[in-house]
Amino acid sequence: MRYTVLGTGAIGCYYGGRLQQAGLPVDYLARGDYEYFSQNGLIVESIDGDFQLDKISVFKDPAKMPKNDVVLISMKTSANVDLPNMLRPIVHPGIILMVLQNGLEMEEELQEAFPEATVIGAMCFICSFRKAPGHICHIDKGSINASPLKAEDMPQLENIKDDFTKAGIGFKIFSDLRTARWNKLLWNIPFNGLSVLLNADTEKILSLPEGEAMVRRLMEEVILGAHSEGCDLSRDLIDPMINFTRVMVPYKPSMKLDYEAGRPMEIEYLFRKPLLAAKKQGVELPNILQLADQLDFLEKVNMESLQGK
Amino acid sequence: MRYTVLGTGAIGCYYGGRLQQAGLPVDYLARGDYEYFSQNGLIVESIDGDFQLDKISVFKDPAKMPKNDVVLISMKTSANVDLPNMLRPIVHPGIILMVLQNGLEMEEELQEAFPEATVIGAMCFICSFRKAPGHICHIDKGSINASPLKAEDMPQLENIKDDFTKAGIGFKIFSDLRTARWNKLLWNIPFNGLSVLLNADTEKILSLPEGEAMVRRLMEEVILGAHSEGCDLSRDLIDPMINFTRVMVPYKPSMKLDYEAGRPMEIEYLFRKPLLAAKKQGVELPNILQLADQLDFLEKVNMESLQGK
Repeated sequence: MRYTVLGTGAIGCYYGGRLQQAGLPVDYLARGDYEYFSQNGLIVESIDGDFQLDKISVFKDPAKMPKNDVVLISMKTSANVDLPNMLRPIVHPGIILMVLQNGLEMEEELQEAFPEATVIGAMCFICSFRKAPGHICHIDKGSINASPLKAEDMPQLENIKDDFTKAGIGFKIFSDLRTARWNKLLWNIPFNGLSVLLNADTEKILSLPEGEAMVRRLMEEVILGAHSEGCDLSRDLIDPMINFTRVMVPYKPSMKLDYEAGRPMEIEYLFRKPLLAAKKQGVELPNILQLADQLDFLEKVNMESLQGK
Repeated sequence: MRYTVLGTGAIGCYYGGRLQQAGLPVDYLARGDYEYFSQNGLIVESIDGDFQLDKISVFKDPAKMPKNDVVLISMKTSANVDLPNMLRPIVHPGIILMVLQNGLEMEEELQEAFPEATVIGAMCFICSFRKAPGHICHIDKGSINASPLKAEDMPQLENIKDDFTKAGIGFKIFSDLRTARWNKLLWNIPFNGLSVLLNADTEKILSLPEGEAMVRRLMEEVILGAHSEGCDLSRDLIDPMINFTRVMVPYKPSMKLDYEAGRPMEIEYLFRKPLLAAKKQGVELPNILQLADQLDFLEKVNMESLQGK
């Protein structure tokens, strides 16, 4: 299959780069980085082997892109308001939209905007960051859990799995997207949120008992949220997830990098959508709500100071 | 009556200074500031009128202090572990110990250590800070609400009220100390805690809707805590307290100043004691607990970095 990558951050460049390295055709949509990519290509430093792609096929106007089979959506969710406009020129009947973002309800929103598309959620378990334009560092993990929004779209997902597997990427398929999304939030909500609030990476957060206690309480609430929607997420996931994070390389989650760089944080899809989903079921998640409000507060102050107010 | 002041921070120097200015005898116990005070005295810049005391009676050893009638306890609660040892040489039957600190259970602990003393709680509604050794700035408010730990000690408190009133300090007496303490926490818990977490003064906290929402949720939990102990604290206090803070001068609460200076924060008495008191009654206060853990986390990281770890 032919792939289009929307978003030239760490996620899009890493997985797009791996597919291209494996011989699959990949076209990128770049915005700020367009000139850089078209002249210099892509460098990936990876624990699974470094590689360099001198030539990459890059566009800045979605209307001029080829109508490929699969679109990998890897921009930040903070840009999702623009997503339907970006996708409109490249969506065609039978297209597969695969969401490599974090949060909740990205797939449902996409399906509503494009009923003709096959929508797939991809949970990327990867520690990576963009070192510079066209220069990605992949420092730990790297596999993907994926799930179709509609069960009938499973065959298309099997085809994608073949491509990713060929590219050397661990790729597991799960039947229930909503549960898989909550499962990913189990990590993202505590570690993204607390890294900003406490000015700490994953290692620092877990180095103090108060840090681990906060992580656990937030994880308990993510599980409450999942259960409120009838998703079968087990409390038994908490211990392994904390242990796995403890042995991971010390990592600044993307929200922390966004905050430090003065970019918008993904508060809406990572925090507000799960809070709202649980609230619709009559369940309050006080620790997550307080953390979300704290993050919104810090983001607004950050933006004001950048604007010199 | 003759007064002893323990603690030469903003609170002790302001109220001690006012009493002395009104002609009452005041002796201070100073530690780090002893040399400065004995040579230079005290300067107070106050919205109620500046004043200067060239000579103040200052000691560095409690055993050498005169056995006065009243001790004003105005050090930070983070030093309360040392308090019994400091007090032992100056306590005598009939002494009045008046606690000008924030938090919960300081009076009960003192009474247990010194059953022969009259213990009084004083809630200081004042915006003040120490600009330099011996130099205090009083920028807003200034009155005291006081309450005896034991109802039978009301007459002694009436005598103190006379002295403070003579010194020009607004002084109201309340019958129920525990309720008055929770009432003070209604302000201290949200504004002290959030000022550190959000790196913001009172004006900034209330300038954003997320800030006000967090303050309100924390205040609701303080009221839950008070109710758990049967203290009659009304929800109707929340709106006036927020409005009063909004029109106050923009203020960095003492916990924020402590954090910035790398001093220990008053987490134990301001957060842990109220949390424990409510828990004993079977009531959880999740927003306050999360904030307390966040503060403990930040304090430990702060201390580690000061120790160059």
